[in-house]
Amino acid sequence: MSKKNLAILLRARMRSNNPSTKFSLSHFPKEIQSNSQENHSNEGIGNSSKFGTTGRVYDVVRETMHSAISASKTGVLDITLSDFQEGYFNLSLEDRGKLLLVLAKEYDVNREQVRELVKQYLGLENPASDDDSKEALSSVFYRTERNLRQSLRPTYEVLFERLNTHPGGLRFLSILRADLLSILTKENTPSLRSLDTFLKEKLGMWLSPASLELHQITWDDPASLLEKIVAYEAVHPISNLLDLKRRLGTGRRCFGYFHPSIPGEPLIFIEVALMETVAQTIQEVLWDNPPIPENQATSALFYSISSTQPGLAGINLGKFLIKRVITLVKKDMPHVSTFATLSPIPGFMQWLLSKLSSQSRFAEGERDTQSNSPSSTFSEKVLLPEEEQALMSLSDDSSSGSNGMEVLLNLLSVKNCDWPTSPRILPVLEPILMRLCARYLLQEKKRGKALDSVANFHLQNGAMVERINWMADRSEKGIHQSGGIMVNYVYRLENIEDYAQSYFGSGKIHASPGIHSRL
Amino acid sequence: MSKKNLAILLRARMRSNNPSTKFSLSHFPKEIQSNSQENHSNEGIGNSSKFGTTGRVYDVVRETMHSAISASKTGVLDITLSDFQEGYFNLSLEDRGKLLLVLAKEYDVNREQVRELVKQYLGLENPASDDDSKEALSSVFYRTERNLRQSLRPTYEVLFERLNTHPGGLRFLSILRADLLSILTKENTPSLRSLDTFLKEKLGMWLSPASLELHQITWDDPASLLEKIVAYEAVHPISNLLDLKRRLGTGRRCFGYFHPSIPGEPLIFIEVALMETVAQTIQEVLWDNPPIPENQATSALFYSISSTQPGLAGINLGKFLIKRVITLVKKDMPHVSTFATLSPIPGFMQWLLSKLSSQSRFAEGERDTQSNSPSSTFSEKVLLPEEEQALMSLSDDSSSGSNGMEVLLNLLSVKNCDWPTSPRILPVLEPILMRLCARYLLQEKKRGKALDSVANFHLQNGAMVERINWMADRSEKGIHQSGGIMVNYVYRLENIEDYAQSYFGSGKIHASPGIHSRL
Repeated sequence: MSKKNLAILLRARMRSNNPSTKFSLSHFPKEIQSNSQENHSNEGIGNSSKFGTTGRVYDVVRETMHSAISASKTGVLDITLSDFQEGYFNLSLEDRGKLLLVLAKEYDVNREQVRELVKQYLGLENPASDDDSKEALSSVFYRTERNLRQSLRPTYEVLFERLNTHPGGLRFLSILRADLLSILTKENTPSLRSLDTFLKEKLGMWLSPASLELHQITWDDPASLLEKIVAYEAVHPISNLLDLKRRLGTGRRCFGYFHPSIPGEPLIFIEVALMETVAQTIQEVLWDNPPIPENQATSALFYSISSTQPGLAGINLGKFLIKRVITLVKKDMPHVSTFATLSPIPGFMQWLLSKLSSQSRFAEGERDTQSNSPSSTFSEKVLLPEEEQALMSLSDDSSSGSNGMEVLLNLLSVKNCDWPTSPRILPVLEPILMRLCARYLLQEKKRGKALDSVANFHLQNGAMVERINWMADRSEKGIHQSGGIMVNYVYRLENIEDYAQSYFGSGKIHASPGIHSRL
Repeated sequence: MSKKNLAILLRARMRSNNPSTKFSLSHFPKEIQSNSQENHSNEGIGNSSKFGTTGRVYDVVRETMHSAISASKTGVLDITLSDFQEGYFNLSLEDRGKLLLVLAKEYDVNREQVRELVKQYLGLENPASDDDSKEALSSVFYRTERNLRQSLRPTYEVLFERLNTHPGGLRFLSILRADLLSILTKENTPSLRSLDTFLKEKLGMWLSPASLELHQITWDDPASLLEKIVAYEAVHPISNLLDLKRRLGTGRRCFGYFHPSIPGEPLIFIEVALMETVAQTIQEVLWDNPPIPENQATSALFYSISSTQPGLAGINLGKFLIKRVITLVKKDMPHVSTFATLSPIPGFMQWLLSKLSSQSRFAEGERDTQSNSPSSTFSEKVLLPEEEQALMSLSDDSSSGSNGMEVLLNLLSVKNCDWPTSPRILPVLEPILMRLCARYLLQEKKRGKALDSVANFHLQNGAMVERINWMADRSEKGIHQSGGIMVNYVYRLENIEDYAQSYFGSGKIHASPGIHSRL
């Protein structure tokens, strides 16, 4: 694809710009189907041109799957594996689900064999840890243990391993898992979950950072690669060819993780802006023109990270990406001393609206009964008294409510609301939303980890929460997700290891005094 | 390194040209130590500059190993892992052995936990295969099974996995395994064997063909890479810079498999000559000058395959290499229709000498006792009557013997023997050695597979034995290994899959009528 065609593609894309076909770290399963259709058009579901009727297609694919699993270990199953891949792409999502259920159940662990080996294993003595004279006995023990370990592997592992070594197989497995995740949202059975857990573990192993290559992506790269960047950029959509060119030009960097068997397509990529100070708003990053000369930069700002494969959800590909990018930038430009992000807070508004909605119901209940109703044990004061007062003073037709929470809820949930442009409302909301956002980032957790997915990502990489920025992303998406607030996470090289460790160990979230003072 | 320095290196290498520091598919464990010393000079054993006395070094490394294994899962153990790697390189081979034994025994499977989980597992019902209504029960079953599978993994897996994701870790693991193989030749205990089996399996997984990149190596590649080719070429040593340049020039190709985390160094590489006909002698390949124009070539001859990492012994890296190279060459040059090798037969003379030696002892025993001694059940006629006669007629002072086998044994085993240049002896030996070589290649097996390692390699890749060539490699090594005979294996695209499958399944060795007629 030439760059001229890329421009045409970009224009076409702008016309049908549908944000729900994007894919980012923050929202996984929903978009999988639309995404995999968009990006793999020749793998579109149900295009059963070759195999005739649907039922027949299904039978053929199922048979091919059986051959691919049960053929002897020759390493030359190429035709069978290619047929299986092609056949699979010809199935409807429903048939794919049926097939995956067969795989999960009929090619599971051979449990008779496991029970047999368990019996043998229990009959053997543990190998003496300081006596190698029982040589022969020990050998039998180790062999039995290995056999038992082997027998506990489900039979479908063979299919995954064979596909992984087959050209295009790794990418196929990632699509298969995307389907599986989509099917699990409808049919969440233990056997399918188990299949998914197993496949996820295998993919995580095959895509270990050791097998990924970090490349800088530049304007000199093929248009077919740049097209992928345009298609997958999930945080701040690329609006035109000039926009793309700027993101790859002076004062900017773009790095991607590539896997040898998925060529020409990064699995994840990160965009970096070189700046004099850590930017507070995304507008500064996207619209500063011209950018400062690179030798004046002291900060590297990670302003966008996008993953491209829905089927790799839950596999932390970014884990080493940031550290490796920091090392690379530092080596290239020793005068850059601050490494920070300007990140979205994808879960903030969703959390806040649900909190306001449940709490204002509790408040109503309390007022009605004037008693210790059971619900009151779950009630909490979301707003401070002065915030309550300020909100009630705003109450008018468009944002009426019997208490501050209701007013806030109405203000924020009205569609196409104009609060971000209202000189009357904005100053009232700023301190309230900023305080609640700090609370959300620093205190709201799920299984001991930050509730917000992007926060969790950076914290487990060893970052700290440095600053939250008001009206930092005024795009429709920014307002909708986080009330326009964005956050700077900062990576301090000397603290990365400690911070990651204490976050993993005890869930401790490191934050600057400035953020703490908002609480 | 500039190419001028490469030339100097080559000259230096020629002076101290010691074949035992080479490494090839055919001889693994012996050379590991010398090889890993030669190629990783800054990782030389026992260079304990940093850690003081040996005992102290060992204790520190052992402690670091413990931290590397037991630290919580943070992904930021970089310092510990680097310390461990560096410390390990500072240990003597003896201390490395001690450390690996500790790893094998003290960080093995947690067997108490296994027994506990086995009990739980046996107490649960298998999940009903057609009834997902027992949802909760099934969930418990799958979870217990997963936990049991997990618990059967030795604790040292953590160390291997962490090292694999650490910069330089994969290469480190390959060196660690080379040490382990070397230690196993002296101290072959079940726990160390078990450690090796496990590590080999892990390395095989991480180095799956999907994670390897095939690159053509050319004269334009960095000298630091070309130097590796010179150092590792195991089949036909590269004698000078001109020789190297020719092997990368017109009518020649060199392809290597690279892994992203072992950059600048192929794990295995293959050299290809484009020819009009399939060469019968290596001299034709190495000395044809000038080579034919590429557009006249109809054959691609694989004349050398070398692996570079002793620690990856037993992992079939070449498995997909040949198929991928064939595809690449075919695409580039559709007029090339024959893909063949000109291969050494590394085990032929060793097999023949040991066969002659044992059989001539049997023959002597039989003559002495004139009875059915127990040994006679193992005796066989190695030579045909006319061969016996021809050999006896050669008998003189330098090659006397009481029977044909003894004469042959004496002829072949005399050091610096001149039989390959003797016009009297050569014509007598030719039919005998050629027949015995055909027998060796087609009939001598070990566990149902070809006894010869190179034969086994090509047969499992789907090749057939096409032709054996007399005096095809007159080098000292060629005479010593295979009496100067070389073999052409041929890959016919339409048969590769079938042949590999029947070789795997029943050990069937496909061979041309020409070879069969020699038997």
